[in-house]
Amino acid sequence: MSVVIDRMSPVTDIDPQATMWAHQVEEYVVSYLNQRQLPANLVNAVQYSFLAPGKRLRPILVLQACHAVGGQFESGMVSAAAIEMVHCFSMIHDDLPAMDDDDLRRGRPTLHRHTNEAMAILAGDVLMGMAFEMVSKRVKPLALAARIIRELSTATNDMIAGQVYDTLPDFASDLDGLTKLKTIHVNKTAALLRASVRMGGLCGEASEDELKCLTGYGEAIGLMYQVVDDLLDVTASEKQMGKATHKDAGQGKLTYPGLMGIDSSRQQVITLQTMAHRALADLGKPAQRLKNLCDYMAVRTQ
Amino acid sequence: MSVVIDRMSPVTDIDPQATMWAHQVEEYVVSYLNQRQLPANLVNAVQYSFLAPGKRLRPILVLQACHAVGGQFESGMVSAAAIEMVHCFSMIHDDLPAMDDDDLRRGRPTLHRHTNEAMAILAGDVLMGMAFEMVSKRVKPLALAARIIRELSTATNDMIAGQVYDTLPDFASDLDGLTKLKTIHVNKTAALLRASVRMGGLCGEASEDELKCLTGYGEAIGLMYQVVDDLLDVTASEKQMGKATHKDAGQGKLTYPGLMGIDSSRQQVITLQTMAHRALADLGKPAQRLKNLCDYMAVRTQ
Repeated sequence: MSVVIDRMSPVTDIDPQATMWAHQVEEYVVSYLNQRQLPANLVNAVQYSFLAPGKRLRPILVLQACHAVGGQFESGMVSAAAIEMVHCFSMIHDDLPAMDDDDLRRGRPTLHRHTNEAMAILAGDVLMGMAFEMVSKRVKPLALAARIIRELSTATNDMIAGQVYDTLPDFASDLDGLTKLKTIHVNKTAALLRASVRMGGLCGEASEDELKCLTGYGEAIGLMYQVVDDLLDVTASEKQMGKATHKDAGQGKLTYPGLMGIDSSRQQVITLQTMAHRALADLGKPAQRLKNLCDYMAVRTQ
Repeated sequence: MSVVIDRMSPVTDIDPQATMWAHQVEEYVVSYLNQRQLPANLVNAVQYSFLAPGKRLRPILVLQACHAVGGQFESGMVSAAAIEMVHCFSMIHDDLPAMDDDDLRRGRPTLHRHTNEAMAILAGDVLMGMAFEMVSKRVKPLALAARIIRELSTATNDMIAGQVYDTLPDFASDLDGLTKLKTIHVNKTAALLRASVRMGGLCGEASEDELKCLTGYGEAIGLMYQVVDDLLDVTASEKQMGKATHKDAGQGKLTYPGLMGIDSSRQQVITLQTMAHRALADLGKPAQRLKNLCDYMAVRTQ
């Protein structure tokens, strides 16, 4: 069972176009910020966090999902940029002293260490707000903008709820561990990944059936992502991850390896990977990139 | 020059219907939260802050602006609820220890004192996200939802920028005090008040000309609100305001009374009040409530 975490595999190893897309998403956000009247120190703080080296998984999912249903890459750009802004907001706030209290993120000081807590709170806030502003101003027609915002805002709120379930748990006392864990994962991680592919589908004018395929794929990789993340916390080094590891057990957090052991967790990854493949079947060849991305996510080491 | 701060005047003194509207906005938000799958402790935290006694100025402005251009009150309800959620988010985050570090808000412990910092950060986050979710799901047609979100998100980000200008100033060294102060006020306070009346106008299907009148009114009362707030910080008691007062001078903050004295600040209130009245002139009798509200805002003592 060495399929998981057996090699260094950035997204761009398996899809060279993703490198270009990732850069274009970064440039799009920087350009949006620069044409927007904002305090210079706030823009600097946002850029410090947003431009930190990252996998750009969510925007790449948006663009690949758009492509998988026959859409032009350009049609998904605003949504791709917006979902990465929401992801970035969540990381900034999660790192705060009152939350996970992390000093390191993607190998660099977290934003509140680089600037200060007040700026980190406000930069996170404005990243979330700016994601919705950007979609409402740049996505056409307006009805599509509203649909994209519906997906993005729902997933954002689910993610925040997931963070509460995870860090400030208030579950009914009779709930078993696995049910609690799934509630955490579905909200905290899976919601935004699911929204990524659905937003991409909407931008590519997916049919109802196509959107259903993408949703199934998004839900499977969404759960898979967090199982892999839990595994990496146990098995990877801080250097490899660019952030503190081995934290979950110390904090008594519910995790897959903690509940079912490392081997069963790895099996769970493979089960979810298979589900993701199956969900894509009806989309045919255009979904090949999404399939590859899922395979990368199953074996990622960062 | 005793026109300002000379009597206790809640909004409902001058517009009894506003009391009913305020309650309906509260009920709308509570009902939205209850049908939404969320952790119970997060909902409790949000409700603790949202249901604290408040003036509900922004939602009342939305509904009155909608009415002023011939719209039905119901058409503005979602937007009214959404803008109060954004206002509530901003207060929760502004009160945090790393920000204004306030223990008291509306006469009760601030949310981070009532619960904890992590919950206050997350409850603020979800209030902002939920405002956009609610509009995207409940406002019809979708194109109107996108227009409302454009107004609300732009004002939200301007408000966050204003908080940065105010608390983490990074102005060019050659800017004079009054220019800095106006930059702070236009963003921090006026943007959301301006958006309130514009959102109400959009919900009431205002013409371009009507929207222009409402915008002029919104900009005038937006600035006026903050001048009155600065005056209240100097002249009002903690008991009267339900929060700490006399804080600005101690923190070396730029304020109207600090820059131009109390009497000139009071004159400024009257100037802005007159501008607001003039902006409404073309809307005729249906705008009477907005005029009354402006007059209340000029003399409010809370």
